[in-house]
Amino acid sequence: MPEFKNITLEIADRVATLVLNRPYARNSLNTEALSEIHRALGVVEDNEDAGVLVLTGAGEAFCAGVSLKGYSIDNREELRQGFREVAMWWHQMLHRITRLPMPVLCAVNGIAVGGGMGLVLASDIAICNETAKFYASWMANGMANDGGSSYTLTKIVGFRRAIELMLTNRTLDAYEAQEWGIVNRVYEGEKFTEMTASIGQQLADGPTHLQKFVKQTFHDGWRRSLEECTEHECMNILEALEHPYAKERLNAFDRGERTNALQVNLDQVEMKTIDS
Amino acid sequence: MPEFKNITLEIADRVATLVLNRPYARNSLNTEALSEIHRALGVVEDNEDAGVLVLTGAGEAFCAGVSLKGYSIDNREELRQGFREVAMWWHQMLHRITRLPMPVLCAVNGIAVGGGMGLVLASDIAICNETAKFYASWMANGMANDGGSSYTLTKIVGFRRAIELMLTNRTLDAYEAQEWGIVNRVYEGEKFTEMTASIGQQLADGPTHLQKFVKQTFHDGWRRSLEECTEHECMNILEALEHPYAKERLNAFDRGERTNALQVNLDQVEMKTIDS
Amino acid sequence: MPEFKNITLEIADRVATLVLNRPYARNSLNTEALSEIHRALGVVEDNEDAGVLVLTGAGEAFCAGVSLKGYSIDNREELRQGFREVAMWWHQMLHRITRLPMPVLCAVNGIAVGGGMGLVLASDIAICNETAKFYASWMANGMANDGGSSYTLTKIVGFRRAIELMLTNRTLDAYEAQEWGIVNRVYEGEKFTEMTASIGQQLADGPTHLQKFVKQTFHDGWRRSLEECTEHECMNILEALEHPYAKERLNAFDRGERTNALQVNLDQVEMKTIDS
Repeated sequence: MPEFKNITLEIADRVATLVLNRPYARNSLNTEALSEIHRALGVVEDNEDAGVLVLTGAGEAFCAGVSLKGYSIDNREELRQGFREVAMWWHQMLHRITRLPMPVLCAVNGIAVGGGMGLVLASDIAICNETAKFYASWMANGMANDGGSSYTLTKIVGFRRAIELMLTNRTLDAYEAQEWGIVNRVYEGEKFTEMTASIGQQLADGPTHLQKFVKQTFHDGWRRSLEECTEHECMNILEALEHPYAKERLNAFDRGERTNALQVNLDQVEMKTIDS
Repeated sequence: MPEFKNITLEIADRVATLVLNRPYARNSLNTEALSEIHRALGVVEDNEDAGVLVLTGAGEAFCAGVSLKGYSIDNREELRQGFREVAMWWHQMLHRITRLPMPVLCAVNGIAVGGGMGLVLASDIAICNETAKFYASWMANGMANDGGSSYTLTKIVGFRRAIELMLTNRTLDAYEAQEWGIVNRVYEGEKFTEMTASIGQQLADGPTHLQKFVKQTFHDGWRRSLEECTEHECMNILEALEHPYAKERLNAFDRGERTNALQVNLDQVEMKTIDS
Repeated sequence: MPEFKNITLEIADRVATLVLNRPYARNSLNTEALSEIHRALGVVEDNEDAGVLVLTGAGEAFCAGVSLKGYSIDNREELRQGFREVAMWWHQMLHRITRLPMPVLCAVNGIAVGGGMGLVLASDIAICNETAKFYASWMANGMANDGGSSYTLTKIVGFRRAIELMLTNRTLDAYEAQEWGIVNRVYEGEKFTEMTASIGQQLADGPTHLQKFVKQTFHDGWRRSLEECTEHECMNILEALEHPYAKERLNAFDRGERTNALQVNLDQVEMKTIDS
């Protein structure tokens, strides 16, 4: 495992956990930190045992976006070059997270600002604690909306609310973010840590090779015709049949086992099944 | 009318009703059943009097998806060939339902599993009774998400909930499905049968040649620029003007009739009109 | 400023207000009125001081859509030509409103019917008073759904409700429209006028050159891959850096000013900020 200064990475029991670790800077990220994240994502991609990536922050903040420190504001060329470079690193991180062939669980432990909110939106499932706040800070910093927001936000909150959030520049609290769909669930206090571990483990224990199809097909399917979608679904089915898991599950089905044991429980309630 | 073993088809008062009729198998469908559905859809497409297709199931289930019985699980070639074939039949059914030039009302009388849920999502309007449950079973059976879900689900429940539903593999009950938008309405007990008949008739009595534009333009418009959308809307207006119905309605408008009589009443309440 | 018969246009304190002014016809629009709107939009586009377009109606209605008066219903050629022409004017209005490089606030003061509802949907932020009603009248008038509805409606209310609204032809009242997302907020009585002025001014006082990116990127981003979206976001950031506002805000950030003063307050409540 490489040495990191700005993040930590741990892989145990199929759960890869990447912690943004610059609490003194509200986990804002500079190119050095982003470069470390890329190395970490490479490790996760190459680890055949990893079944989920959990993304969270150290300290009280989740992520305050791009670190705005150290830019030569009065030097046009350097300012442009600096932002071009950090945007390049940031965007590539978004691409890799979105394409990662396993679920990404974002555990939002505090404020998510600008690009930090973009990270939440780019994750597959997002949960937060009651201290989390969501703020699209770009305009307040003189910037155009960034962080993949033009790709993710309308898909998640709908067109009307996406424009409202950006143009009004309001801050959403944890429960508003849940109501809008920016996070899937809010858990309070200790429950947040427990559920991060529990959901992470449940996702990791699921069929990774099938979970990756969910991400792929929903992202690609957004822009495809029905006919393209079904054709790709068919090809995925044929690929899934090659995996021993398919045979195992089909045999279980033949034996009459109609288990719903593969559920991931976000709500800590007894789960409904089709046979109950 | 052809003879069917696995389904029934009835056309009366402009209402075509296709019932999945394999209650002993929870209305799961094999290639024989799918082939019958294709013949039935051909009959409906060719019937100029049909103004709506009502899709429902016999017995306690709506549809348990693809029938998984009879596959040679240990024969790779036959297994692949079998799934390729049933997927082909199933996908073509989805394409035809989506392109059918009249509204499709899905009356979900019980569980909708996997491809069965895909049928609900592919329909234009979906209602259910209080026993209905919705379950994306693919992963539990070792399969990649299928049934057009990568095309329909995000459009209907949004990106965040679409991924949640698939990755958590949870079962939604009737009221959750209504809250998510998977069905438009839940009706309890006898009311479900009454409303299936009533809504089916009201849709059938509407202007079929205009209803088809709603389906077409929303499906196509999802991926079009604003300018392409408005151009196609304009071409549809010109096509609509050729129909005697346009002249009839424009003359009624000239006489001052601002009727809202064309409403379809899903809520069994006195309907608001712009003139009240 | 040109003379107008069917509308009024006023620009003051960076707020451009365009009032549909045919109250005797519920502000339905014919080609003459549309041609005036185009001239007005040209004035707004050319005015470097304008920071918002407020769109509202005189009298009790917002807009009853295309004026259906005066068509030679029994003369096929003239009927087609008349609708082709009015559609052309109407559609170009939608294109310009959507592409206008500043926020468009729609203040819906009463009924919004057909194309009138289309105008609401094409605006960036929409508010209404308690008398507003929303009605997709096309089918009742023998017409195919138009007014950009095939582009805007699914993006705003989702696929399921978009089809429901069209096929059932129901009328939504103000609070239903808010619940569906057709308007962002309802304000009652005097509050509506106050909030129209207040929100208009707050939007006008925002960074217009950045607000335009929000519109552009959300409209374009709907159909783009993630990678195209991030690349365009990056180009916008570089363009934003050229504006003196960026330097001003970055310097403020360096001085430790984490102001949320750029918020637009739609809810008349004390606003949350990330530092509170």
